[in-house]
Amino acid sequence: MINFLLDLKTRIHFGKDSVKNLKQELYPYKKILLVLGSGSVKKFGIYDAVKKELSDAGLEIFELDGVKPNPSVDLVYEGIGICRNNSIEFILALGGGSVIDTAKAIAVGVPYLGDVWELFIDESRITNALSTGAILTLAATGSESNRNSVITNEKTTEKLGIHHDCLRPQFAIMDPSYTFSLPPVQTAAGVADIMAHVFEQYFSPTKDAYMANRMAESVLKTCIKYGALLLKDPENYEARAEIMWASTIALNGLLGAGKIGDWASHMLEHELSAYYDLNHGVGLAILFPNWMKHVIDDSKLWKYREYAVNVWDLPEGMNDMQLAEAAIAKTREFFIKLNLPARLSEVGIDDKYFETMAENLIKRGKLGSFKVLNKEDIISIYKMSN
Amino acid sequence: MINFLLDLKTRIHFGKDSVKNLKQELYPYKKILLVLGSGSVKKFGIYDAVKKELSDAGLEIFELDGVKPNPSVDLVYEGIGICRNNSIEFILALGGGSVIDTAKAIAVGVPYLGDVWELFIDESRITNALSTGAILTLAATGSESNRNSVITNEKTTEKLGIHHDCLRPQFAIMDPSYTFSLPPVQTAAGVADIMAHVFEQYFSPTKDAYMANRMAESVLKTCIKYGALLLKDPENYEARAEIMWASTIALNGLLGAGKIGDWASHMLEHELSAYYDLNHGVGLAILFPNWMKHVIDDSKLWKYREYAVNVWDLPEGMNDMQLAEAAIAKTREFFIKLNLPARLSEVGIDDKYFETMAENLIKRGKLGSFKVLNKEDIISIYKMSN
Repeated sequence: MINFLLDLKTRIHFGKDSVKNLKQELYPYKKILLVLGSGSVKKFGIYDAVKKELSDAGLEIFELDGVKPNPSVDLVYEGIGICRNNSIEFILALGGGSVIDTAKAIAVGVPYLGDVWELFIDESRITNALSTGAILTLAATGSESNRNSVITNEKTTEKLGIHHDCLRPQFAIMDPSYTFSLPPVQTAAGVADIMAHVFEQYFSPTKDAYMANRMAESVLKTCIKYGALLLKDPENYEARAEIMWASTIALNGLLGAGKIGDWASHMLEHELSAYYDLNHGVGLAILFPNWMKHVIDDSKLWKYREYAVNVWDLPEGMNDMQLAEAAIAKTREFFIKLNLPARLSEVGIDDKYFETMAENLIKRGKLGSFKVLNKEDIISIYKMSN
Repeated sequence: MINFLLDLKTRIHFGKDSVKNLKQELYPYKKILLVLGSGSVKKFGIYDAVKKELSDAGLEIFELDGVKPNPSVDLVYEGIGICRNNSIEFILALGGGSVIDTAKAIAVGVPYLGDVWELFIDESRITNALSTGAILTLAATGSESNRNSVITNEKTTEKLGIHHDCLRPQFAIMDPSYTFSLPPVQTAAGVADIMAHVFEQYFSPTKDAYMANRMAESVLKTCIKYGALLLKDPENYEARAEIMWASTIALNGLLGAGKIGDWASHMLEHELSAYYDLNHGVGLAILFPNWMKHVIDDSKLWKYREYAVNVWDLPEGMNDMQLAEAAIAKTREFFIKLNLPARLSEVGIDDKYFETMAENLIKRGKLGSFKVLNKEDIISIYKMSN
């Protein structure tokens, strides 16, 4: 186990009607910015429930709506402006990862004297941020309690992430029933995203970290059991609850504590999303089984064996390579069962930018740790996914 | 899954030389109280390393030493006095659960106007506490990051616990090498204590909570694998690290999130410790397999099946009752393998107070949830353990 610092400071209010805790959480504030998406929360009564709590609390509310998937830095600039002009003290995100990431980027941009995009180019400049809170409506990114924010800059065709403990929300309101009305593809992409977060930490060069590995398998088994169930029964509270809680645990730092993460597949997907505005979870579902295939070699079979036996219950008697191949096949089958595409061509992406994207990725530094990828590796994984 | 609030605010600095983070954590303070045990930390250089960091930080340090297992409220009174007379701002615990629990009890007692023991009689009176931090030297209670403190009042023969989020330490320094020199019985009792914490949350009337159950099994498997290893190889860093991290995860709230806990066995053990000054982990190792046997009935076999198959790898083909009995036998065998006693008579306890202790326990309200125990149940479990 390697040394680690873990600061899980986000207070989690989990369960039906947990929105009732909002008033008490916002007690110290007078002026807040409410950040939200493009309308779906307004359709299903969630927005009204939140507004009622906020207005009962006597807060002055400013709103920034219209956050889209692969959220844009332009809206972040707009949010920073609103906060500065109105002496906003707190930023409340109502939505999924894109909305929460936008709120965090605004929060870190407000006290920063330069252009907030500079922080995405060089996150070592981050020192502090306004406080944020999240009301989650989509289980996927784990942004509701983690230290990350990923923002897209369309002008420079960059999708970049920042990481700092000051970005962890002060609280997260997690009511599984808020995810009942999600379109099936968003539910499925969310499950793929959660599993991808676990994979990035599970397929690690750190050989020990026994308990972290077993907990990672617990999260994966949860996704497999309840992800499939949700496609048939989208208003199953228990299934929604398990997936929502899995999304938090998958990326709050717990599963990576004491281990080196890989994160190459995420970088490959971010590059795709920057060029094509692809859904992040869909992109990961397409790429990950191909990454698994590409990076395999004899020195890594121990990890694939663990994955095959402990997650997919494949028989221990099979030889290592058979187990690895069977487990990768199971992974792909599962994503197909979730009605997720298996090829980039299915989502209208061709090989036009594979080389450019690979060059962009290599430029940013070392990519991967379970296996370090070079330019040819990246192009090869993109081609396998085509 | 039932609704929950989870506030894991303790910053964890984990790994070799993590004591180096002490200075930065204590930066805001000038005067601290250092609470410690009866000398073992001074033997192995840990105390010196801590003192060096504290003196480099230029802090004014007051010391309270002599905390013993089943820590006494008398020392808590003494600590409260030191804090009040010297305007202490922060309490730093250096030790295991007893030392940390003492520090927490002092922290909650300083701002309370009445007798601190009143808070143990009625914890609903707790509103705030001084800030605390913990440098852990024994993996067992999880007190380094949880909201609990358990203190013994010899005058009233009571061992009682308090629970409040204000008791969570601000930080925990967890260097596995600090536990290398523990006597084997303390290592073993710590492992039993960790497993007992998991059992209390695992054997729950909440039937779903799938992911929490799988994570609980991960912690149990970690204890079984590395607990046994430590008895042979006490300076195995990886084994010490896994057990130390397991101790935190077992009782920081994560495994119980969304579930009802039982905690009856803990109450039975606290009562024993109040009368006999028994090591808490030893008491739990004696009692728990008997509790498992006593509370079994047809409606609960599903849980024993999960435990048998997922934790002890027993064959799924066995019938439910066989599985349950085999899993309980495995539990006892494991504790015996750790050289822990299996009977109260081995630690000099007879049946003299069984009836009195059962009456004390029943008086304090409902006991247990997986099965609610009445007076006869309690006496029966004590007798089975005799």
